[in-house]
Amino acid sequence: MPYINIEAHLPGVTGLLEFRKDTSGPLRELTQILLRGHSTLSEAERELIATVVSSKNECVYCTTSHTAAADAYLGENETSKKVKENIETAPVTDKMKALLNIALLVGGNGKNVSPEAIQKAKDNNASDMEIHDTVMIAALFCFYNRYVDGLGTYAPTDPVYYSDMALRLKEKGYYRPKDGYEELKNKQL
Amino acid sequence: MPYINIEAHLPGVTGLLEFRKDTSGPLRELTQILLRGHSTLSEAERELIATVVSSKNECVYCTTSHTAAADAYLGENETSKKVKENIETAPVTDKMKALLNIALLVGGNGKNVSPEAIQKAKDNNASDMEIHDTVMIAALFCFYNRYVDGLGTYAPTDPVYYSDMALRLKEKGYYRPKDGYEELKNKQL
Repeated sequence: MPYINIEAHLPGVTGLLEFRKDTSGPLRELTQILLRGHSTLSEAERELIATVVSSKNECVYCTTSHTAAADAYLGENETSKKVKENIETAPVTDKMKALLNIALLVGGNGKNVSPEAIQKAKDNNASDMEIHDTVMIAALFCFYNRYVDGLGTYAPTDPVYYSDMALRLKEKGYYRPKDGYEELKNKQL
Repeated sequence: MPYINIEAHLPGVTGLLEFRKDTSGPLRELTQILLRGHSTLSEAERELIATVVSSKNECVYCTTSHTAAADAYLGENETSKKVKENIETAPVTDKMKALLNIALLVGGNGKNVSPEAIQKAKDNNASDMEIHDTVMIAALFCFYNRYVDGLGTYAPTDPVYYSDMALRLKEKGYYRPKDGYEELKNKQL
């Protein structure tokens, strides 16, 4: 039971984004630019950053949603599983390992990011913009995780909810659906 | 020394906001709406929420900036000092005590917010929107604190920097200064 009166058929962040639309507008815009805009990091890589941070913060709704989104881009579900278990042995590039490690450090506290962690990313050819975006995405999901869990929203247990969500995040991005989630009413889980 | 190549004369978040302007646009907009837009919480109360969360996260730049902003609205500097020391004995309303407690819980992890903490806010006549905004502001400053510290930005030590910043935040809000911070070049600290 959410702590505030949001629409019952909208789980996780979706009900919050409808609760206060004047704040969700720029929030969606920021997320769209950062996770879907031009970048030398692929959409899958950016979704993996969102995934490891949400997993560290134990936010079930965000972790499951962004795992599904990363899987949708990658066309498989092993990589997302493995980065959540152990970044060092996961099947990602050395640059991504260094960036995912920075993201995990940010998840704890920005102060945890060490010059050594940054140097490792630079040694593996991470650009300043890639480091910036990694820290910003990690920080943004520290926001989302707290927004979603701090207001007691519920996380569906049916995997179909998340695979549908992943397809929407892949095909339409983070902007508000034109139908304002009416489609979800017909898929009440 | 910041971890990425940002303009040397722009400390804390200001250099980051100039580093990537396409993301800082919606971020500034979100912050402006949430901290300066219409609300039954005063600007000072919202700045106090930002302050206690930044203090919990030990982000010197954000704590000092938003303490100064709260002080500028309140016209004194005792309240901000006391809410950082002990919310229960600070000179704020019972509703604000309950909301600041929720903010501190969010600062740790969204999951830390208990039904009892929410009930206490509701018992003290906090509305759903006030609870929503408290959680959102607290979560947003968990973002800012990590963005600022995760990229190794520097925090000036001269109090004049923060009192100037507070006046700008009070008089002009969170939008990008028209002069793009040129004014700060003349006040290099």
